[in-house]
Amino acid sequence: MPGPAKKDEEAQSALQTPWARFMTDDEYYPFLIKKALRPAFWRWQDLYPRLNKVGKDPVRRADRRFISLVSDDTGEAGGALPSLFIGIQYINPGEHILPHRHNSYAIYHIIKGKGYSILDEERFDWEVGDTLLCPPMASHEHFNNGDEEAIQFVVQDMPARAMDRNLIWEEPIGNVFHMVEGKGAPHQDQD
Amino acid sequence: MPGPAKKDEEAQSALQTPWARFMTDDEYYPFLIKKALRPAFWRWQDLYPRLNKVGKDPVRRADRRFISLVSDDTGEAGGALPSLFIGIQYINPGEHILPHRHNSYAIYHIIKGKGYSILDEERFDWEVGDTLLCPPMASHEHFNNGDEEAIQFVVQDMPARAMDRNLIWEEPIGNVFHMVEGKGAPHQDQD
Amino acid sequence: MPGPAKKDEEAQSALQTPWARFMTDDEYYPFLIKKALRPAFWRWQDLYPRLNKVGKDPVRRADRRFISLVSDDTGEAGGALPSLFIGIQYINPGEHILPHRHNSYAIYHIIKGKGYSILDEERFDWEVGDTLLCPPMASHEHFNNGDEEAIQFVVQDMPARAMDRNLIWEEPIGNVFHMVEGKGAPHQDQD
Amino acid sequence: MPGPAKKDEEAQSALQTPWARFMTDDEYYPFLIKKALRPAFWRWQDLYPRLNKVGKDPVRRADRRFISLVSDDTGEAGGALPSLFIGIQYINPGEHILPHRHNSYAIYHIIKGKGYSILDEERFDWEVGDTLLCPPMASHEHFNNGDEEAIQFVVQDMPARAMDRNLIWEEPIGNVFHMVEGKGAPHQDQD
Repeated sequence: MPGPAKKDEEAQSALQTPWARFMTDDEYYPFLIKKALRPAFWRWQDLYPRLNKVGKDPVRRADRRFISLVSDDTGEAGGALPSLFIGIQYINPGEHILPHRHNSYAIYHIIKGKGYSILDEERFDWEVGDTLLCPPMASHEHFNNGDEEAIQFVVQDMPARAMDRNLIWEEPIGNVFHMVEGKGAPHQDQD
Repeated sequence: MPGPAKKDEEAQSALQTPWARFMTDDEYYPFLIKKALRPAFWRWQDLYPRLNKVGKDPVRRADRRFISLVSDDTGEAGGALPSLFIGIQYINPGEHILPHRHNSYAIYHIIKGKGYSILDEERFDWEVGDTLLCPPMASHEHFNNGDEEAIQFVVQDMPARAMDRNLIWEEPIGNVFHMVEGKGAPHQDQD
Repeated sequence: MPGPAKKDEEAQSALQTPWARFMTDDEYYPFLIKKALRPAFWRWQDLYPRLNKVGKDPVRRADRRFISLVSDDTGEAGGALPSLFIGIQYINPGEHILPHRHNSYAIYHIIKGKGYSILDEERFDWEVGDTLLCPPMASHEHFNNGDEEAIQFVVQDMPARAMDRNLIWEEPIGNVFHMVEGKGAPHQDQD
Repeated sequence: MPGPAKKDEEAQSALQTPWARFMTDDEYYPFLIKKALRPAFWRWQDLYPRLNKVGKDPVRRADRRFISLVSDDTGEAGGALPSLFIGIQYINPGEHILPHRHNSYAIYHIIKGKGYSILDEERFDWEVGDTLLCPPMASHEHFNNGDEEAIQFVVQDMPARAMDRNLIWEEPIGNVFHMVEGKGAPHQDQD
């Protein structure tokens, strides 16, 4: 939006919360309207080599390996859609993704391999074609107990929760934080 | 996020939809985490002079007059909260806000004056302290039939609908459009 | 919630909109709290025979065939999660799902087979492992041009849009309606 | 929806999570479509006597007094809209609403009286016409330090958070819980 006149700006900066703006109707609508989302296409032939590389990396910040499908058109929101995360999770044979939980949900559709997940205290053994729903605040951990890579198509509402600033995370179990800048982050202590 | 290496960028630009990105887990979390929202305070003593000025302006783009309360912390989302619009609507005696409708809802809490609204075909006569809910897709028009200014505290989910790119608008009645860049806008033809 | 006393009920029914209730704080919280969602698990071995049956049915109301994964715990909301639809779409060789559009988004992850989709006017040829995003209000149609069944794992925000009563649908192209009771429905004219 | 045949029901009950259903396209759409929301009108003349009564009650479960405006049309969701809570909060002179916090936001528009709020550690002194935003997870407490009743028009996204089962609450400070059935509730221990 066009900047306000200097006098207005001085008045604004004298307020208790100067980031609390007043916008007229003529200013507001242009500001409200967002860039249109275009169709987006992520092909397996482009994805798989990246997944494979992530699978061979040493595990760094996170104890997990995934490739997220993100459309640039979502801007700040940061997802496949402004409200939705799509991630392709990769688990090597013998690997274990440690328990954590959050108030965003997760859906796991199995693309390849076999293994099991523990949601709260219940075990679910999965293989190709199965779909497992982890509800908000259920702790979850995943194991690949097969002989080949396991790949999951994962759907979460993390971007909506992050945009609304109501994302609550617990990782490792016992370490609860509000996921906004400056309040905590997964794995930040590992830098 | 840090830019990709040149070779990756070339591969990306060769895709059918080059805006469809692949991000690793290490890249994704820092991107996901948003600025914390601070408390925001809009005082009547700062708002009322602006409202009064808007009330005296000739009506320009819109046929309505309002001041929206926007926190800079909401970034692109653009509202009092990332998902919520607060507007203070001002109607001079004798003024009529023409019928329009949209799939965002609107709540009108009357702060000052008296008048009536027509929602679809039903008339609601309001005065100070009343709260009127206009559901998604109900057409609405407002009249000030009193002797003094009428002021409404208005709550809408426009920012959530705009961010999700699912905001549908009809104004004037008969002119339906998807409110994203390039597809239409209220009053744009009046520039 | 416990019913109100008779005198209150008479006063309520005399209001212009008697469905507009007043609840005290003591009444509200118990009403607000919802049933916890349990983990839910849909196995391919249970899903595939149902898909296969749907694939052999004559097409009835819809011109499309899918099995939706719904958790009973979502109650009225009606989805895999209260805000999310998961459907497994099945397309026989040679079948064509006719163009339609809506303000809910759709993500198609290909589980089996090959074919193509036309989003607005662009063609996307897909095969197993590909993921295609159809943004809100883009028209979409799907073709199976392979020799075997095509199966898509489909993610949509229909339940959130339906619950918020802001779901707008156009099917066939040219027939726009607000998807709430009494205002229209896909394929209802085919009963 | 019509009940399934007996044989199907037996197969369903044998699953690891029998509440995880499979619905065909013909079953799903009728289930998805919700009751239309009608306009709703809450008049001050009907609200104020109720507020006044709540103001004179001994404080029971909660340490706060409010009347929520709820439309019956929202069904399970339970708000003025399926995603939105409107409450009219009443504070007697000298009363203090104790600090608590949650991942739903709150907006306070002052209708009557004067007082102050402490959000995290900052004090905001308010009077009629002022609007104060408390962001997700900020602790908040309110004081009426005037000579007459203080009344706030309060807007929150509690119903959306409760429906999505991602509502996190902390009350009193130090007692964090996930607000779903069986996991905790404000003030339940005071029965």
